[in-house]
Amino acid sequence: MRLSTFQPLDQDASEIGVVIDGDQVVRLNRAAPGLALDMIDLITRWGDLEAETRRLAAAATDTLPLVDLKLLAPVPRPEKIMAIGLNYADHIAETGQETPTSQIWFSKQLNSVTGPFAPVEIPKASAFVDYEGEMVAVVGVRGRHIDRDHARAAIFGWCVGNDVSERAWQGRSSQWMLGKSFDTHGPFGPWITTADEIADPHALDLRCLVNGELRQSSNTRHLVFDVWAQIAELSQVMTLVPGDIIYTGTPGGVGIALKPPIRLRAGDRVRVEIEGLGAIENPFEPEA
Amino acid sequence: MRLSTFQPLDQDASEIGVVIDGDQVVRLNRAAPGLALDMIDLITRWGDLEAETRRLAAAATDTLPLVDLKLLAPVPRPEKIMAIGLNYADHIAETGQETPTSQIWFSKQLNSVTGPFAPVEIPKASAFVDYEGEMVAVVGVRGRHIDRDHARAAIFGWCVGNDVSERAWQGRSSQWMLGKSFDTHGPFGPWITTADEIADPHALDLRCLVNGELRQSSNTRHLVFDVWAQIAELSQVMTLVPGDIIYTGTPGGVGIALKPPIRLRAGDRVRVEIEGLGAIENPFEPEA
Repeated sequence: MRLSTFQPLDQDASEIGVVIDGDQVVRLNRAAPGLALDMIDLITRWGDLEAETRRLAAAATDTLPLVDLKLLAPVPRPEKIMAIGLNYADHIAETGQETPTSQIWFSKQLNSVTGPFAPVEIPKASAFVDYEGEMVAVVGVRGRHIDRDHARAAIFGWCVGNDVSERAWQGRSSQWMLGKSFDTHGPFGPWITTADEIADPHALDLRCLVNGELRQSSNTRHLVFDVWAQIAELSQVMTLVPGDIIYTGTPGGVGIALKPPIRLRAGDRVRVEIEGLGAIENPFEPEA
Repeated sequence: MRLSTFQPLDQDASEIGVVIDGDQVVRLNRAAPGLALDMIDLITRWGDLEAETRRLAAAATDTLPLVDLKLLAPVPRPEKIMAIGLNYADHIAETGQETPTSQIWFSKQLNSVTGPFAPVEIPKASAFVDYEGEMVAVVGVRGRHIDRDHARAAIFGWCVGNDVSERAWQGRSSQWMLGKSFDTHGPFGPWITTADEIADPHALDLRCLVNGELRQSSNTRHLVFDVWAQIAELSQVMTLVPGDIIYTGTPGGVGIALKPPIRLRAGDRVRVEIEGLGAIENPFEPEA
């Protein structure tokens, strides 16, 4: 199932829905008022709500065409946004670093969250904005100490993300966080593809294109630390909760590693596609 | 004014209140149902609510003794928890590093938030838990690009905090975030002292004691980057919002820098005191 948070073009409030037939959304809040408040609520109570959600999706009685709505970040206010660095061999090579022996985790902040087709800012304080196409995991359960054998069951679903990075700020100190946390620098979507639909999340082609030009092309099988290892590592430290977002790493081909390096500029469009999960495409615009 | 989030010992729900006379709390949610939902709501609408809050505090008609309640983190669910590293000269010296030319920012995650007197865990996966006594700033406004001349007006108030740090995880990779984000490793409180009560936040004595033994003793005048510079730096990157929490740095005397190093152990009590802001004191207990 493909679950979306969206805003009908003719209203201010957001809704949740099921994307069907490629171009229609079943409006869950209309079809079943009170079913679930928002995406985190739906994920949290998925065990109780899945059957009814599937029935509503099949009935398809209260739908809206995708062209009449704006897709938002599927989880608009995740509690945590974790991201792993240097997690594809070719990306490690292009940065001139060694393969890490431990997972390298940083976080993006809530202000970075934006929609799968929303404008992303070229900040006023920016010198070099870059893309990082990534598979994104959405946590489905509350849990701590989830070992890798139980990690699959802790994932609710998968998205496509762009871990937009401001390289000057990323390198301004030893800690990358500010360079990863500009407003709008964390688009993901276009919807959540539930885990049951993805037989093997570690066998998906991933591509990133800038203005139609292919820049990143890899497959999630090349992750250094796979998602199960990621869940095991994070949950030693923190209680994961439904709706937590995990950026799982980017392959080679980022702009800063090109020769010569190429930064993103206002007017650029960055598209990230992942096999079975859809695509996001964000226009880059000067900070308002 | 001293604003608190608390839980009466005889109920599950939390409330907000004004601490008066040192040992009583005026229960705002009872005295004026509908005044404000929670601390973030109160901060957000402070311009409209301050006069009525002061009137209710003065009337003191619906109070509870501090001994009959549990003080919680004043902002239980901040959107962001920012923390700056290496920001007191003596702490920089004891770590053997050079004075940074740029501010070093990392983040703590929401799962780390806990109350000013709540147990803090010695994690199962832990090798070396340490304290970092710090002044904490609470953001009062929504804003971006707040220059240092306007930074004072962006602060709602001040707390005492302990940036509890797991040193092995902090050093496990180049990024400190996981070592700073264990469950319960971000206590702060005991309440918010509103900014109007603190003439100069950069002139406050700060002390940290472990089991009554003085470990850190400094004054906020020794901050390398003062809070106004911190607000200016952060807000170049991110829209700050009411209730955002900023750990402003720790002075020398942390356990890892003692010779020999001394880790925190189950049964230890860590007290952090700041002139005019009160004190927090957390018992350390094995992870449940």
